[in-house]
Amino acid sequence: MTDLSGSRVLITCADRYMGPAIARRFAAAGAEVIADRGALGSDGEVEALARRAGAIDILIANFAQPPHTSAVDSIDNDHWHALFDTLVHPLMRVVRKFAAPMKSAQGGKMIAVTSAAPLRGIPHASAYCAARGAQNAFIRAAGLELAKFNVQVNAIAQNYIKNDTYYPEGFIATEKFQAHLKQMVPAKQVGEAAETAELALYLAGAGNRHMVGQVIPLAGGWV
Amino acid sequence: MTDLSGSRVLITCADRYMGPAIARRFAAAGAEVIADRGALGSDGEVEALARRAGAIDILIANFAQPPHTSAVDSIDNDHWHALFDTLVHPLMRVVRKFAAPMKSAQGGKMIAVTSAAPLRGIPHASAYCAARGAQNAFIRAAGLELAKFNVQVNAIAQNYIKNDTYYPEGFIATEKFQAHLKQMVPAKQVGEAAETAELALYLAGAGNRHMVGQVIPLAGGWV
Amino acid sequence: MTDLSGSRVLITCADRYMGPAIARRFAAAGAEVIADRGALGSDGEVEALARRAGAIDILIANFAQPPHTSAVDSIDNDHWHALFDTLVHPLMRVVRKFAAPMKSAQGGKMIAVTSAAPLRGIPHASAYCAARGAQNAFIRAAGLELAKFNVQVNAIAQNYIKNDTYYPEGFIATEKFQAHLKQMVPAKQVGEAAETAELALYLAGAGNRHMVGQVIPLAGGWV
Amino acid sequence: MTDLSGSRVLITCADRYMGPAIARRFAAAGAEVIADRGALGSDGEVEALARRAGAIDILIANFAQPPHTSAVDSIDNDHWHALFDTLVHPLMRVVRKFAAPMKSAQGGKMIAVTSAAPLRGIPHASAYCAARGAQNAFIRAAGLELAKFNVQVNAIAQNYIKNDTYYPEGFIATEKFQAHLKQMVPAKQVGEAAETAELALYLAGAGNRHMVGQVIPLAGGWV
Repeated sequence: MTDLSGSRVLITCADRYMGPAIARRFAAAGAEVIADRGALGSDGEVEALARRAGAIDILIANFAQPPHTSAVDSIDNDHWHALFDTLVHPLMRVVRKFAAPMKSAQGGKMIAVTSAAPLRGIPHASAYCAARGAQNAFIRAAGLELAKFNVQVNAIAQNYIKNDTYYPEGFIATEKFQAHLKQMVPAKQVGEAAETAELALYLAGAGNRHMVGQVIPLAGGWV
Repeated sequence: MTDLSGSRVLITCADRYMGPAIARRFAAAGAEVIADRGALGSDGEVEALARRAGAIDILIANFAQPPHTSAVDSIDNDHWHALFDTLVHPLMRVVRKFAAPMKSAQGGKMIAVTSAAPLRGIPHASAYCAARGAQNAFIRAAGLELAKFNVQVNAIAQNYIKNDTYYPEGFIATEKFQAHLKQMVPAKQVGEAAETAELALYLAGAGNRHMVGQVIPLAGGWV
Repeated sequence: MTDLSGSRVLITCADRYMGPAIARRFAAAGAEVIADRGALGSDGEVEALARRAGAIDILIANFAQPPHTSAVDSIDNDHWHALFDTLVHPLMRVVRKFAAPMKSAQGGKMIAVTSAAPLRGIPHASAYCAARGAQNAFIRAAGLELAKFNVQVNAIAQNYIKNDTYYPEGFIATEKFQAHLKQMVPAKQVGEAAETAELALYLAGAGNRHMVGQVIPLAGGWV
Repeated sequence: MTDLSGSRVLITCADRYMGPAIARRFAAAGAEVIADRGALGSDGEVEALARRAGAIDILIANFAQPPHTSAVDSIDNDHWHALFDTLVHPLMRVVRKFAAPMKSAQGGKMIAVTSAAPLRGIPHASAYCAARGAQNAFIRAAGLELAKFNVQVNAIAQNYIKNDTYYPEGFIATEKFQAHLKQMVPAKQVGEAAETAELALYLAGAGNRHMVGQVIPLAGGWV
């Protein structure tokens, strides 16, 4: 399963969120890693990326957006739209772009790194839940549609995984957050980005054809 | 439960989708119905509506968008954004606007009419699923947040309900659609808009305080 | 919706759990209530009940079992089997018995009062979750199967509702439980049995044909 | 991830259902495989197995029961109880038995092979759905409970995977079943037992600590 020699994997936002851990893990498994750092905020940017990347076997659609909590009645327009612009529309753009060549090739894997937040719902994070919910629903439908072309599309719906955007080291160490963890997360600790990478590696494996359109929680039992 | 005398209910898009059936049912139950027909495409439009509506007890957030199916690899940008502009952003705007007075009043009901599509996933409708998934996730989180203020927020995630946008009479009568119904929907028939209105009435009832943040499927067993 | 004049409703365990509240509510709505108090621990008991009850329009399958928590590694055999004997097998027996006449009559409603516990999972209650999970899955499948006969089968998956079995008055009043409520339940309070009765009434209404095979959480946002 | 050298894995029903494929895959990954063939129909049998097996790192709880469909109104008592006796009670017995040593060792993995059937619901298979639903709910709760002891418990909820119990070769080849597959399963084909083994291997890997209490569908997009 873990031998990806000869495979070419494109990782978006490769320098942040789950990007670095996934890049390391896939490279260690033998894949050729194409690391993109753009925000993919326009079709043009995605077109340019596709030309640069060439043919790929695996797409890791990894997007994150700094947290910003607020009560429902004081959701900020800029924050709201930034979530959709950063998380939702770029995901559609890359999946749309790479679906066609994968369909033609009758093979390919797409793995989106999303969030478990919309699966449970978080007060004061309704904007974030909305955007992540759009991602999960999109991946679900795309996965069902592309399965018959031997293209497997799934999402890793994570939470409480160490990462620079949502759970930086300093924040994890605070007493307040540790108390929150003990209370809310059955595993009683945050996970490592390497765990997301390990699940992504399983999903990218050649042996996986029957796993499609799934939004798989990886959240220490929080959902 | 069904006596809504003295209650003021605001219904968005009251002239389409589930609007007319809900307006009739709530009026029959004694509520004063404020029927809005706007698209609520801007904050200004929502502000004007709020001034016009005055204090309300119940918000029915009813939005629909004509269907437009396409393969993942040929999603049209205009169609994609129209879905978010018509279904997602207006829902946020009205919930945001009416959350504050309901919190202050320590009471209120919000009922969103959404779709079961993202709960199951539909090939060739990934854009629609994404937008409806955002709605459902937003309502879930908003419902959890507002529950402690005695404001109950829930969604009716419907499918296969007769309505002018998705299932007009003529379409339902076609042999092809009837065959589809027999195969896909355990109830073997479409539902009536009056059934959505009945569920909305239950959710709007004074006796309901423990039902919050739910996305309730109403789809003939399709999900 | 709420007028059940001329309808005959059978309520199991009518003297406990949600039985009394549902009996009161349905009687107030005009239904003739047949109140059974047996445990329905054998086919013979169910046969006798069916003879006594005669033709019914609505079945309320209401079963509960005193709580008994334990670590997974010390599950007690007697407790384990008592849960299945009290919650699972009697539910199958009554649904099986009344399905045939309802299919013949091309009409009928079955409403099971179950639990939200298996929808979230509760440490130290894995036995209880297993039994309630069997109930929910059974209702889901039975509901999909019976829908085409115009028999609507659904479950109310409740938690944190005041009742003599799990949440008696004295227990609710304790400081420890109140702290637990504030932390775990978005509604910040327990619900009333009358709320379950109200949801059951909606589900039993003549206007409801499209709602089938659903396991509807009623738990203050806990799930 | 795939190196299980030095690990001891116990596989129940190792000669049937997913047993042979998992045994092969785990042996290839370096694990010492203890293959049990009993039905584990009594505590005594599980005690004897535990003595024979000694200390284990990984438990694969694999149980299946020949299919037997029937309408809800004609569920056979023997069939009903056989499902619980074969699928549910043995699963509880092995998880209960091996939970204590794993808790003491502060480490261990349990992987149950269950079914996606209760996640969607199957008409004429309500008995089967009930039993598999009990399994899934039990694993969910046990997983949440044992996570803090560094014991990860998860289930593979599969369907449409080639196996001698439900989908033997001859059955798969029939025109009727092939038509059913094309209609019901987005992947348009059955999966291989090797795919279940691959997912089990991922779940058993040392790198997985954050994945707990999950019931992971592996069903070609059917759920």
